[in-house]
Amino acid sequence: MAVYTHVGAEDIAALLDNYGLGPLKSAKGIAEGVENSNYLIDAGGGRFILTLYEKRVDAGDLPFFIAFTDHLAERGCPVPRILADKSGIHVQSLAGKPACLIQFLDGVSVSRPTSRQAHAAGQALASLHSAAADFEDGPENPLSLAGWNALNERIGDRFDQIAPGLGEMVQEELAFLHGNWPTDLPRSVIHADMFPDNVLMVGDEVGGIIDFYFACRDITAYDYAVTHGAWCFSPDGSSHQSPLAAGLAKGYGSVRSFTPAEVAALPVLARGAALRFLLTRALDWLETPPDALVSRKDPLAYLRRLAFYREAKPGAILGE
Amino acid sequence: MAVYTHVGAEDIAALLDNYGLGPLKSAKGIAEGVENSNYLIDAGGGRFILTLYEKRVDAGDLPFFIAFTDHLAERGCPVPRILADKSGIHVQSLAGKPACLIQFLDGVSVSRPTSRQAHAAGQALASLHSAAADFEDGPENPLSLAGWNALNERIGDRFDQIAPGLGEMVQEELAFLHGNWPTDLPRSVIHADMFPDNVLMVGDEVGGIIDFYFACRDITAYDYAVTHGAWCFSPDGSSHQSPLAAGLAKGYGSVRSFTPAEVAALPVLARGAALRFLLTRALDWLETPPDALVSRKDPLAYLRRLAFYREAKPGAILGE
Repeated sequence: MAVYTHVGAEDIAALLDNYGLGPLKSAKGIAEGVENSNYLIDAGGGRFILTLYEKRVDAGDLPFFIAFTDHLAERGCPVPRILADKSGIHVQSLAGKPACLIQFLDGVSVSRPTSRQAHAAGQALASLHSAAADFEDGPENPLSLAGWNALNERIGDRFDQIAPGLGEMVQEELAFLHGNWPTDLPRSVIHADMFPDNVLMVGDEVGGIIDFYFACRDITAYDYAVTHGAWCFSPDGSSHQSPLAAGLAKGYGSVRSFTPAEVAALPVLARGAALRFLLTRALDWLETPPDALVSRKDPLAYLRRLAFYREAKPGAILGE
Repeated sequence: MAVYTHVGAEDIAALLDNYGLGPLKSAKGIAEGVENSNYLIDAGGGRFILTLYEKRVDAGDLPFFIAFTDHLAERGCPVPRILADKSGIHVQSLAGKPACLIQFLDGVSVSRPTSRQAHAAGQALASLHSAAADFEDGPENPLSLAGWNALNERIGDRFDQIAPGLGEMVQEELAFLHGNWPTDLPRSVIHADMFPDNVLMVGDEVGGIIDFYFACRDITAYDYAVTHGAWCFSPDGSSHQSPLAAGLAKGYGSVRSFTPAEVAALPVLARGAALRFLLTRALDWLETPPDALVSRKDPLAYLRRLAFYREAKPGAILGE
């Protein structure tokens, strides 16, 4: 991750003036988030993130992200609000890119979560789901069954360049998911990418949930499955960490209860979540030169999670 | 520029403990400086830059950078000090790389300097030179005549891939510089890379001079020539900006006076400085794929500066 678009200090200072938030004291390009350019800004009016949206985020989706994060913030979720300038405008144009000025939140992304931190993440996710329940808008998830098919076709016969037999396993798994994907579970807008990277921890509490650029409408419990995969394994995916799974589940359950149907569906949802990240990582792996500045994430770390989920009962996923 | 080495929040928190500067509140990878990995850190004890030194900076040179910036800071120059931990250690090891915790300074790098800002930069450079006068240590500049020869040989017959006739012009210029390079001018440790990027402006004042990783021992006025080239042209090098040159010269002269021999040598020093950046940019240009994340800086922007300096009298360089 890097800063793709350079913005001069003079232009940032002029932007801040539009918000009544100057003078500019410091601006540093920061390397984080999805493929956007981000600046950490210090100004008389406080501290902010300035995001320039590169090709991966569609500017047409920004009004949804703004409305959804506002909705969550009004209900007490620790999410950074996208700010409006003095004319009420949220989306600016900077260096030819759509750009937003966003609240800064304290906290750090942990690399090795503890079960207390997983508990806090579970609580935060359930609070997000509870707050999202009465949000009516939002695009369907482009990375569900149909999107997985499209990724599978795009990768074609290249799976076995990553690992022998991977292509066959993916076809089997896709067929299983198409036959068994639940259709009657509660749905809502979900975060869809709640990795530890996107959760700012202040000690053992969640200070912020960030990076809503994959948010979409899907099965609510699928978001839990994504989060379980992201938080409850060793980094290479080879070892499920029951204490983290138990922490996540207890935290979640302290705010929102799963229905029995949601619990029963957890293994299939988790298999879908594992396949989703396997597919996007596989494509990135194949299309990123090994010596590129951006690090490639190992798709096999999600193949190993998939192996766990294929055998797992719901109780195992809940750390019981 | 990007973050090359990822360091977990847990490891940063442990590092801060060694300095008695915790707890960690926020850590963001920032995209700046030469090819190092940098984090902007907020902690109970203040705000810091954590730098991990990648291959371009030799860890063996760090004691010199530490001693030199300390020397300047003690004499009132606004340079960030490299901090020592509770045991007095400055150079740590993090993720297998040498790493230093550095004071954070407010200010922004301007893209379009004004003549008042050039005046302030001139003052700051002269203050640095005055403070450096009694600093005895420091390596000779590896990017002077011998280094230019080496770059020239490494590029070999590839100059004309950048622009037709460039190779011949470089050979001519190198021959001229070898025949005319001054040998009896005052020398000191110099910054050697004082581009606007490396000067943090707070309004029209210099709040910080950063990135000392090219600092070395060379002709003091050569540093002025480098700074003139960096501050006093349109970005593509085609247009010399006399008001900026006058601002830089008046600011410099308000703190340190040039000797008559230094003034007379300015054109040849500036030709050397222009060739130095032409050569390193040419090599980067030839060895960086056009689609790489790092942006390539145009070597021809320094060929255009060179054309100006070949015709310039000292007075023109001083904006008179």
